[in-house]
Amino acid sequence: MSPLPEVKALLFDVFGTVVDWRGSVIRELELLGKLHDGDWNEFATTWRRGYLENTRRIAQGGTGSLNVDTMHREILENILETPQWKAFGDKLTTPARNNLNLVWHRLDGWPDSTPGLYALKKEVVIATLSNGNVRLLIDMAKHADLPWDTVFSSELFGSFKPDPKVYLGGIKHLSLEPHNCAMVAAHVYDLQAAATVGMRTVYIPRAGEEFPGVNEVKTKAEGGDVDLVVKSFTELADLLGQ
Amino acid sequence: MSPLPEVKALLFDVFGTVVDWRGSVIRELELLGKLHDGDWNEFATTWRRGYLENTRRIAQGGTGSLNVDTMHREILENILETPQWKAFGDKLTTPARNNLNLVWHRLDGWPDSTPGLYALKKEVVIATLSNGNVRLLIDMAKHADLPWDTVFSSELFGSFKPDPKVYLGGIKHLSLEPHNCAMVAAHVYDLQAAATVGMRTVYIPRAGEEFPGVNEVKTKAEGGDVDLVVKSFTELADLLGQ
Repeated sequence: MSPLPEVKALLFDVFGTVVDWRGSVIRELELLGKLHDGDWNEFATTWRRGYLENTRRIAQGGTGSLNVDTMHREILENILETPQWKAFGDKLTTPARNNLNLVWHRLDGWPDSTPGLYALKKEVVIATLSNGNVRLLIDMAKHADLPWDTVFSSELFGSFKPDPKVYLGGIKHLSLEPHNCAMVAAHVYDLQAAATVGMRTVYIPRAGEEFPGVNEVKTKAEGGDVDLVVKSFTELADLLGQ
Repeated sequence: MSPLPEVKALLFDVFGTVVDWRGSVIRELELLGKLHDGDWNEFATTWRRGYLENTRRIAQGGTGSLNVDTMHREILENILETPQWKAFGDKLTTPARNNLNLVWHRLDGWPDSTPGLYALKKEVVIATLSNGNVRLLIDMAKHADLPWDTVFSSELFGSFKPDPKVYLGGIKHLSLEPHNCAMVAAHVYDLQAAATVGMRTVYIPRAGEEFPGVNEVKTKAEGGDVDLVVKSFTELADLLGQ
C-alpha cells in the first residue's frame, strides 16, 4: 500500500529538487571560459545566494520584483560590477548578458527526474510549486522534458515560498484539501512551511542542496519532521503505485 | 513561411474548441438512460447555457463563484428542480449527482486535438486560456491526452473571459508582448476580446459551436475579423512549422 494513500497531487520545488541548477549554470559559464578564467562555482553560488536573499525578503513582506527573470538580471548586473568579476563583465555584451540570464530556463534535470515524473504522472497530479516565474518553468520543462500537469509559480499568488499563501494558492486551484497534497523538496525549510498549512511532505536529498546547519532529515516515524524520505522520483513513483 | 511568424505562444479556448463537450455530455447522460428517457441534447444544451449566462454576467462585474465546478453543480441542481427534469432528478442520488457534475472533467477531444497539440508543442508554447477551473482542465488533459505546457484558467485571474484581464493575465505570465500570443477559439466573441488587448487570433470552426447570428468567420485578408482560419490543429501545426 502507498505510504501516502490520501495524496492526490504532488507539488514540486524545482531549483535543486528537480533540476541541477549548480551543474547546469557552471557548464554554461565554463563555455564562456574563453573570455575569462574564474571560479565558476563561486559565481553560480553568489548568483543563487542573491536570489535566495531576495525571495526570502519578499516572502516576509518586503518589496521587489515577483518575476525571477527580472530579479536574476538585477543580481547578475550587481555581481558583474564587483571588483572580482568586473573584468569578466567588461567582456560581456548586452546580448551575452541577456543570454546568460536565461541559463536559468535551460537547467538540466537530475537523472531520475524525467523518468520519475512520467511514472508519477500516471498515479497523481504533478505540478510545480516554485519561486521561478511561469515562463521560466515552461521553458525549463521543454528543455529538460518535465511532463507537468500544470505549472504553479509563486508569481501567480503574489509572494514567494515560504510564504504560506503560495502553498495555499496551489492547493486551492487543485480543488483539494491540504492533506490531499504533498510538497516534494530537497530543502527542509520548504517542507516545514508546507506542513504548516497541512500538506504532506516528501524529502529528497540532492547533492549540495541542503542549507548549512540542517542535519540528516528523518521521517516522523524516525523522530524527524517529514512524512517520507526518498532517494529518487522513480522510487517515489514505485511507492505511490503500490 | 509561417503566417504568424511573431507568435511564440498559443492560448486555447477549451470547451468546444479542443473538446466536444456536447457529444461527451450526451454520451454520459445516455448511460443514465436506464433511469430516465429524456432529450439529452436539450439537457446538455440547457446546462451549458446556464454556464454561459453565469460566466458572462461575472465577466461584466457580477457576483458568483469563479469555480466552474461549483457553478456547474448549482445549475445542475436548478435543472433537476424544473418540471421537465424533476422525475429524472428524483432518481439521482447525491453520489450520482456528484459524479454527473464531473462529466465536464471527462470531455473527449476532437479527433485532431491530441495529434495537433503534440505537433504544435514542438513549435511554440501551448496553454489553455479557459473559463474552466484549473483542476477541471488538468483532469480533462489527463483524460483526453492534451499535452499543455501549462494550464491557465480565468480562475487564476479573478474573472471570466471575455473580461480583458483574463487575456492580459495569460500574456503577462508568459513574459510576452500581446502580439507574440495568439488566441485559438471556435467562438468569434472570444477572438474579438483577445484582439482588443493586441493578441493575434486563430479561428477554428467546430460543429454546433458558433453562436446564433454569427456568419462565416473570415480572415482580415478576406475582409473579416481574424488573422487565420484553420480546419484543424494539425493544419495549424503544419502552417506554423513552415
